[in-house]
Amino acid sequence: MKDNSLQIEKVSGSDNGHPHLPASKKIYAGSDGLRVPFREISLSPSKDFDGKLEGNAPVRVYDTSGPWTDPEFRGDVRIGLPPHRLEWIRQRGDVEEYEGRELQPQDNGYLTKGAEDIARIKDNGALEEFPGLKRAPLRAKPGRSVTQMHYARRGIITPEMEFVAMRENLGRSADTLVRKAERSDRSSLNHQHKGESFGAAIPEFVTPEFVRDEVARGRAIIPANVNHPESEPMIIGRNFLVKINANIGNSAVASSIEEEVEKMRWATLWGADTVMDLSTGKNIHATREWILRNSPVPIGTVPIYQALEKVNGKAEDLTWKIYRDTLIEQAEQGVDYFTIHAGVRLPYIPLTAKRTTGIVSRGGSIMAKWCLAHHEESFLYTRFREICEIMRAYDVSFSLGDGLRPGSIADANDEAQFAELETLGELTKIAWEMDCQTMIEGPGHVPMHLIKENMDKQLEVCGEAPFYTLGPLTTDIAPGYDHITSGIGAAMIGWFGTAMLCYVTPKEHLGLPNKQDVKEGVITYKLAAHAADLAKGHPGAQYRDNALSKARFEFRWEDQFNLGLDPEKAKEFHDETLPAEGAKLAHFCSMCGPHFCSMKITQDVRDYANAQNIEAEKALAVGMSEKAAEFKAAGSEIYHGSKID
Amino acid sequence: MKDNSLQIEKVSGSDNGHPHLPASKKIYAGSDGLRVPFREISLSPSKDFDGKLEGNAPVRVYDTSGPWTDPEFRGDVRIGLPPHRLEWIRQRGDVEEYEGRELQPQDNGYLTKGAEDIARIKDNGALEEFPGLKRAPLRAKPGRSVTQMHYARRGIITPEMEFVAMRENLGRSADTLVRKAERSDRSSLNHQHKGESFGAAIPEFVTPEFVRDEVARGRAIIPANVNHPESEPMIIGRNFLVKINANIGNSAVASSIEEEVEKMRWATLWGADTVMDLSTGKNIHATREWILRNSPVPIGTVPIYQALEKVNGKAEDLTWKIYRDTLIEQAEQGVDYFTIHAGVRLPYIPLTAKRTTGIVSRGGSIMAKWCLAHHEESFLYTRFREICEIMRAYDVSFSLGDGLRPGSIADANDEAQFAELETLGELTKIAWEMDCQTMIEGPGHVPMHLIKENMDKQLEVCGEAPFYTLGPLTTDIAPGYDHITSGIGAAMIGWFGTAMLCYVTPKEHLGLPNKQDVKEGVITYKLAAHAADLAKGHPGAQYRDNALSKARFEFRWEDQFNLGLDPEKAKEFHDETLPAEGAKLAHFCSMCGPHFCSMKITQDVRDYANAQNIEAEKALAVGMSEKAAEFKAAGSEIYHGSKID
Repeated sequence: MKDNSLQIEKVSGSDNGHPHLPASKKIYAGSDGLRVPFREISLSPSKDFDGKLEGNAPVRVYDTSGPWTDPEFRGDVRIGLPPHRLEWIRQRGDVEEYEGRELQPQDNGYLTKGAEDIARIKDNGALEEFPGLKRAPLRAKPGRSVTQMHYARRGIITPEMEFVAMRENLGRSADTLVRKAERSDRSSLNHQHKGESFGAAIPEFVTPEFVRDEVARGRAIIPANVNHPESEPMIIGRNFLVKINANIGNSAVASSIEEEVEKMRWATLWGADTVMDLSTGKNIHATREWILRNSPVPIGTVPIYQALEKVNGKAEDLTWKIYRDTLIEQAEQGVDYFTIHAGVRLPYIPLTAKRTTGIVSRGGSIMAKWCLAHHEESFLYTRFREICEIMRAYDVSFSLGDGLRPGSIADANDEAQFAELETLGELTKIAWEMDCQTMIEGPGHVPMHLIKENMDKQLEVCGEAPFYTLGPLTTDIAPGYDHITSGIGAAMIGWFGTAMLCYVTPKEHLGLPNKQDVKEGVITYKLAAHAADLAKGHPGAQYRDNALSKARFEFRWEDQFNLGLDPEKAKEFHDETLPAEGAKLAHFCSMCGPHFCSMKITQDVRDYANAQNIEAEKALAVGMSEKAAEFKAAGSEIYHGSKID
Repeated sequence: MKDNSLQIEKVSGSDNGHPHLPASKKIYAGSDGLRVPFREISLSPSKDFDGKLEGNAPVRVYDTSGPWTDPEFRGDVRIGLPPHRLEWIRQRGDVEEYEGRELQPQDNGYLTKGAEDIARIKDNGALEEFPGLKRAPLRAKPGRSVTQMHYARRGIITPEMEFVAMRENLGRSADTLVRKAERSDRSSLNHQHKGESFGAAIPEFVTPEFVRDEVARGRAIIPANVNHPESEPMIIGRNFLVKINANIGNSAVASSIEEEVEKMRWATLWGADTVMDLSTGKNIHATREWILRNSPVPIGTVPIYQALEKVNGKAEDLTWKIYRDTLIEQAEQGVDYFTIHAGVRLPYIPLTAKRTTGIVSRGGSIMAKWCLAHHEESFLYTRFREICEIMRAYDVSFSLGDGLRPGSIADANDEAQFAELETLGELTKIAWEMDCQTMIEGPGHVPMHLIKENMDKQLEVCGEAPFYTLGPLTTDIAPGYDHITSGIGAAMIGWFGTAMLCYVTPKEHLGLPNKQDVKEGVITYKLAAHAADLAKGHPGAQYRDNALSKARFEFRWEDQFNLGLDPEKAKEFHDETLPAEGAKLAHFCSMCGPHFCSMKITQDVRDYANAQNIEAEKALAVGMSEKAAEFKAAGSEIYHGSKID
């Protein structure tokens, strides 16, 4: 890191209230140390055709960007975020501070300290270690378990649970919600959910007790390592808002620590609920430290990637000792969930031999290579209970990896994939026995008609543990557009019950995502997750669509932009056709031109119906022909009251 | 048009065989005047790790781009495409040539000829009338009907039907298909369709008789105006490949004829199956003439748009006479299908008054305004049989418009929408009585859980007439990304049975699409349509996914690019991370770096299983530990045979 000035790129159009998004203000709900963040988007008033104004309430949205978007916060990535959860963790009285594992040159991919020093000097500081406070790590006191599941099962509602309850309700009280529901009788959907549904049971109002109960029964997790006190609690479960994950990480061929930290902040600005650091190559430890200390969202990793670097890329040289040491190294740093491919069992490997695309998961391949070389059962499987011991000492959540996921449409839902899933179900039960929070990773590449089978099988086999899927991609024929091929599958499987969607960027299969790709991936997945929330009838979802559609209908262009997931792009697209400032205030849209406007005519229908003060049915019975004549005489060219400028 | 040199922008990487897409060759199947076009993508051989080569058969894909991509064709947009269907049409002996309607200045939006001339001079030739051959129009001889449905019902298989049968089979014979199916036993899907399905009955091999039968019963249409002999026949129906439409058209605020002709060619290059010309403002007639004479795909329009221009934008001044005259004007030019909003009936208009976004269809709004102003039933409804008379005299297909489609999630599947759909069902039956080919337009904005209700209701109410939907958009909150919000809904409804998907571009709701937006929209919809074909188990779909995935697995980068929907973008994305030419030949991918490759390991698993010549089950029973030792001794670092360069 070269200087302190690393700042999220400013999005144009932002005002003083919020440093990054237009017409937005950072607000907090809660009290007594619970400060739950939201973004509030202010709207301009509606104006009827007589010029009468009516205010529109600001729209509050879920906010994953952390203190970085709070103008009161004077942040510095060299210091990191404040450890706001530390007090809660310590007060439970079940953790101890200890000296922790000593950092080794191998953690960053160097053979010796000397080699590491030389590399850092050569790189002119770009690979600098995180300079901020290095806290002694925390872990459970002997014989204790510090997982949210452990507390939940004992009836304890933690501050983390209260936080997520408030967050899921968008900070509204139960009262407000009921009043809101009464008011919104205009929508044909409202909060009675018609249409197809698939067994999610989302409450009208999320109570802390509901959160506790869902965590206790394993249907939801709150990834919250005791060593990542900077994170803002969030929940992953199918009776909550659908979440999304963004993958970042350097690789042997490209990118610096600075870029990765910036990608993390960028991803959370646009709405990533968690971030996975998939770094490979050199400086894995240092990169992760920078990311964790600056991340307001839970961070996930795949520890086998780093373990592999420690054995110089030779999978067959991996040992349980090296892997275990890596788990502890990362748990001490504060990683919130680990992808562990413990379901890639020796007997399943030959099942992949006839596939079109074999084993495409990197972790799965590493373990397959190890198993074949040793002709031994995977140590991730045989040592699973020992892994659980580590997980529960720090509250690292399991993300049981699907190492045998299909890498093509041809391989979807095959024997290898489902054999592994059965094992993941078996491991879930062991993890739960030991109070470890657990989610299950899912595919991959699956055509639409086979998606539901995945979801149903996962729910059944894994006892409703949250499902966390990559896409799935619904066709293989569009490299360069796999955020879309997979966004289709992601929206569908989210509706069917997947709790978190791992994003796919346009660069999938082709290269490493840059910042623009990260944004494209996050926004595609935000809209897919939101489409799933709508389809599940989530009571906190449709109000934003309604607010945006109302703004659109009333030609409040700026409000339409600002309520969208990407205000900047919406505005830019609009301005390409109608660049003048006046056009955004004018009562016509660029698709039809100034002469004719379909939305304007609807306004007319409504005004007309209102003016006559008659019901739809009556209108027809009465026979309106003389009224029609009046209307015509009054000048049915209905652009009175507003001029195009 | 300024000169003859208007040419589709060359896509980089193309070779001599095909002027626009790399490794591609234009080929034709059929004989005796039936020349059915395809694109064939040639592949490089597979290379195993001992360097042994095995050839890969070229992959044939559906081709909508017409003669423009045939290097033998010396085309000129000022001359237009050859009228290859003219012979077939004349040979049926049921059409007559006649003088046709006289072109009026009003057809192009001018009050007088003088005004038109001045405008054209001022514009420096940019608005020039189409200079190519002006044929006298054809129409049915008195008392005759010239629709494909008419022939089909009488048991006649037309050349158009033979053409589409061959096209749907990708030019393969029944024999080839069977042999192919036998060969491809590797895929877990093959041609036995597992998973959910929704009543489509797609044959393994499409015969001309099957095509005839589907057209006869109204379940499919072949839009083919006798005055558009340049078009290459295609079929729209749920037992065929899912088709996509691209909208183009100038508006009062932007774009020239030249741009629109170029957009049409551009859209069909990337795969648009039909194009709708939605021009408004001036020069509608001239623009359409240029487009029709140069278009290899059916062209659709919304005639009420032009009729409205003729009455200077005042909806209440519309008359049946003006509208009828416009239908004939456009039918004589060769428009293949008309969107007609005949279901917007007076009684339904008040049903929209309480909507969040009222009436958003432009055609629907125009008719609503007319009905309100006159307090009269819509003339499109009352004159429907007269409209059918015109349609069947030219074989213009109906696209019965959904003028009351929802414009927001809040308005989805409401009373107004479904009331109109019932009327469209009633009108379909009348159209069929008169042998008119008919499809039905569908929404719009619909959350995922309400999409299937749309499809099911349409099939039931409209007697299985093909459904042609716009998206639907599954959420309103992502302006700038509505190609994706709608691509999700499009893929789903395509799977459920929609026959043609009308694309949505990223500019939807914001502005007019430019060329880049047209491409983005077309490719998004091609992948959605293909995902639907896969999910429907279309026997002609998965082979392309398999070929691409095989190329991906074998690191045949160029083949992977070339088999995709957008080779140019795929290559560009790849080269951003690994620009060297060698990287495309190397056996590693940019996501993992050169040191480790998961796909390589799978290759190992497969080689290993093969080398041992043992079945999966046996392998486990035998106890492979000594073989594992051998493998390890032989150097389990498995990059033998290929070096990274």
